[in-house]
Amino acid sequence: MQDEVFEAIIEIVGKKNLLVAEKDVQHYKHAEFPLDRKIPAVILPGSTAEVQRIVKLAARYNLALYPISTGKNWGYGSANPVRDDNYILDLSRMNSILEVNTELAYAVVQPGVTQQHLHDFLEEQNTGLMMDPTGSGPRCSILGNSLERGYGITPYGDHFSFVCGLEVVLANGEVLRTGFGHFKNDQVSRVFKWGVGPYLDGIFTQSNLGITTSIGVWLMPRPEHFEACYFSCEQEEDIYPLIDVLRGLLLKSVIKGSVNLAHRNRALTLLMQYPWKEMNGRTPLDPDLAMKLAKERKVGSWNGLFGIYGTKAEAKSAKKTVKKALKGKVSRLNFVSEKLLNFMDKYPSIISLLTGMNVRELVRVIRPSFGILSGTPSEVSLVSPYWRSRKKPPAIKIDPVADNCGLYWIAPVVPMTKIHIREFIEMVHSILDKHGFEPCIMFSSVTNRCFDCNLPVLYDKDDPKQTEKAGECYEELFTACMRFGYIPYRVGIQSMQNIISENDSFWNAVNTIKNALDPQGIISPGRYSSY
Amino acid sequence: MQDEVFEAIIEIVGKKNLLVAEKDVQHYKHAEFPLDRKIPAVILPGSTAEVQRIVKLAARYNLALYPISTGKNWGYGSANPVRDDNYILDLSRMNSILEVNTELAYAVVQPGVTQQHLHDFLEEQNTGLMMDPTGSGPRCSILGNSLERGYGITPYGDHFSFVCGLEVVLANGEVLRTGFGHFKNDQVSRVFKWGVGPYLDGIFTQSNLGITTSIGVWLMPRPEHFEACYFSCEQEEDIYPLIDVLRGLLLKSVIKGSVNLAHRNRALTLLMQYPWKEMNGRTPLDPDLAMKLAKERKVGSWNGLFGIYGTKAEAKSAKKTVKKALKGKVSRLNFVSEKLLNFMDKYPSIISLLTGMNVRELVRVIRPSFGILSGTPSEVSLVSPYWRSRKKPPAIKIDPVADNCGLYWIAPVVPMTKIHIREFIEMVHSILDKHGFEPCIMFSSVTNRCFDCNLPVLYDKDDPKQTEKAGECYEELFTACMRFGYIPYRVGIQSMQNIISENDSFWNAVNTIKNALDPQGIISPGRYSSY
Repeated sequence: MQDEVFEAIIEIVGKKNLLVAEKDVQHYKHAEFPLDRKIPAVILPGSTAEVQRIVKLAARYNLALYPISTGKNWGYGSANPVRDDNYILDLSRMNSILEVNTELAYAVVQPGVTQQHLHDFLEEQNTGLMMDPTGSGPRCSILGNSLERGYGITPYGDHFSFVCGLEVVLANGEVLRTGFGHFKNDQVSRVFKWGVGPYLDGIFTQSNLGITTSIGVWLMPRPEHFEACYFSCEQEEDIYPLIDVLRGLLLKSVIKGSVNLAHRNRALTLLMQYPWKEMNGRTPLDPDLAMKLAKERKVGSWNGLFGIYGTKAEAKSAKKTVKKALKGKVSRLNFVSEKLLNFMDKYPSIISLLTGMNVRELVRVIRPSFGILSGTPSEVSLVSPYWRSRKKPPAIKIDPVADNCGLYWIAPVVPMTKIHIREFIEMVHSILDKHGFEPCIMFSSVTNRCFDCNLPVLYDKDDPKQTEKAGECYEELFTACMRFGYIPYRVGIQSMQNIISENDSFWNAVNTIKNALDPQGIISPGRYSSY
Repeated sequence: MQDEVFEAIIEIVGKKNLLVAEKDVQHYKHAEFPLDRKIPAVILPGSTAEVQRIVKLAARYNLALYPISTGKNWGYGSANPVRDDNYILDLSRMNSILEVNTELAYAVVQPGVTQQHLHDFLEEQNTGLMMDPTGSGPRCSILGNSLERGYGITPYGDHFSFVCGLEVVLANGEVLRTGFGHFKNDQVSRVFKWGVGPYLDGIFTQSNLGITTSIGVWLMPRPEHFEACYFSCEQEEDIYPLIDVLRGLLLKSVIKGSVNLAHRNRALTLLMQYPWKEMNGRTPLDPDLAMKLAKERKVGSWNGLFGIYGTKAEAKSAKKTVKKALKGKVSRLNFVSEKLLNFMDKYPSIISLLTGMNVRELVRVIRPSFGILSGTPSEVSLVSPYWRSRKKPPAIKIDPVADNCGLYWIAPVVPMTKIHIREFIEMVHSILDKHGFEPCIMFSSVTNRCFDCNLPVLYDKDDPKQTEKAGECYEELFTACMRFGYIPYRVGIQSMQNIISENDSFWNAVNTIKNALDPQGIISPGRYSSY
């Protein structure tokens, strides 16, 4: 039977695009937490038509398919299906930029188009447009991240908000075009996303209702002027008076993108690995040592970051407003322009001499976040998972999962008020302290009214005891977030069933729609759904 | 049987909330085009629980329900169901503002909350927040307009984008809360709209998949500074070089809200009625006379309008950028602040003397659009439908449909490029000219990449011949828009079946979802769906 299935698949995608050998499949089974998924094979279709044929074949043979774009869902299960015995449908060969319209500022991309790919294309073609990179690195899929409703920190940071038009293969093998895309002669499907009639795009995000094979993405014209703003606070408590101020600046569009606020611990994970030597192999990190390490690296208790975008005059006025608003609330506040960075690059020794700072080191640290704010993807965040690993992260092509780093992500949403932020931080600290992990909080404003807290549980996966503790810690954290009502905006395969409850009309409706569109349960069983 | 149904309904909502007498139902049957819907009764529930009970009753007796909020879907069929024999479910009694959060800048409203109601509440309570009014007037529902994906022209103009969390009664009688709203203890359902898992909100917009009983709405904090910008061009052709400039200003967020561009004809419909006398009863309006009337009223061939929002410094810099960009492209460009308007109010004669303008008249004309840009609903647009009527619009509480005005709306989307705008304008002119109606084009930027053209066919509904012609004109216009690919963002009950085609996987999916969620076809049969 399986031979017959394999033969039928090969007929569609060709022999080299069906992976069955253990060594080939192994790569997809890497996980950042203990997991050993049974994966019968990996199918790599090359076109929407091939995806349609595979789906029809899956219906005939009762297979479950688990589509991935590039499979870098790090901290959430990576490429692994939610359940055993799913065929992975790896769409990374479908990697064409189908269209870039510089006049109307959008692109149309397939699942395999990575952040680096689109970035380079936009630069090489001198389009004057920029993309919004998410932190997961240059080799991640734009489509995959957008459908998972990921985010970046430029003004186009809420990725799904800037998606305009999907092409989706349904479980019945039909190709659905959302928005206006299904109308003959349509001229407007990439400039207006709602279409006419029910707006369906949302049901294909964080779901298992279809296999999306291309999306339109709005792109931001490069602003006349850009600067990055870096600020920090000395004390842990300093974050609270800051919250109202930041919310005000965001709601009034003085800050047009997102604000990132990283706790000292999180900043350290980006700059170094766990100081095993100083700690004599003990965990968690001693607070006094943390402070010392932070001080050496000019890291505050809280470290903020956002971009200033606009004309020169707008930027000037925004900076003035920001300075006034943050006065007395932060201990450091710097605006960095491309010009300043280049100057520092050129004359590091002179500036070091004048300021007493290690300028080369400073530029090395600033460049990546500066790049992300101005549309250049970077691997800067990918070193964090190596925090407790005994391996060093490589200089490039960092793959924390292949390197067996230990990482759970949890990403709860918190309203942007002092009271909520305090309750949340205290909850996180008490749980991570209890289990012996450093709370590595980073808040990112994902709307002007809330932060997403992207919070990793970082551990040494080569240490079985730590691995066990990390799992317990993650579970307790997850449960607490749900109990306090700080629900995660996205969950990993390990927690799908923790957000679904039986007597909830929301999930009933999701299940009803799933059964209607995919009665056989062909697509990603159990992914944000009971079926 | 019907008596039994009525009794059961009365048991739920009370006797006075079931309307069956012809004179009571008549009010709901007013239409702006020839229509005589059979409506057995109107039910006015007072709560979500009553809506649930009505839905269950409808299932038992196989009734079709047609929910309306305030029923002012003018130009699209008003309160009338798509098909005969639907019970109108008038939700206007559910008119509570359930919550206003000034810190996080949102409100939660029921279907009966009108624009005026929310506006007044926000002002009286000194919330510092403003709402975005749509042009349909103070007595329209905020929820109804948002679910129909209507728009205004402030930075919060794309209403559905600013909706955060729905409460929906499904056809099975269950109450569904979208986003994070269905999680116990949830603290984040009004600050982040996607929730976790499939984003369902979209399927309850422009649809018949549920009855929405409340929505969260994000509100804009009043900017430190606001000015309205008015500009105009002399020649019809002057619009084309303007398009690229406006798109640039929008994409670069110099203009933060929407740009409105009204053709001379449209502007005239806002300022006067059809000059039957000068035209000796003939139609359409003679172009030379139109020019003369426009000149007398300081109306250009194209008349633009947008708001400047921000801090004082930002507004100053934005104005500078706008002036530079529009230089040589427009014949008039004025910025109007509240201060200037008040000054004009106070010293009309002096300014008239100095400028030679009728300042009282000018203020009367400017106030309403100024108000709409700064969050005050107005009846300014409601006089347009009286253009060809022989009745005068009343001074207040304008109800063009009750006054039997003739009006078809068509609202196609057009990409914001010269080439598309030219093709579109030529198409519109040729069809309206042919049928003897004035093309009353208004373009509103509904994204930074497209305009919605809100285009009325205005006619004298007391004249049977004109009425017939108007119907033909509308049909031809609709067909042409679809053929050219300028698809309407929304359609009236008269055109639901013209956007649905049988072999279209989009509509197949919509129908599949409809059959799954509402197998008996209880809710609004035929509304943006075959069933």
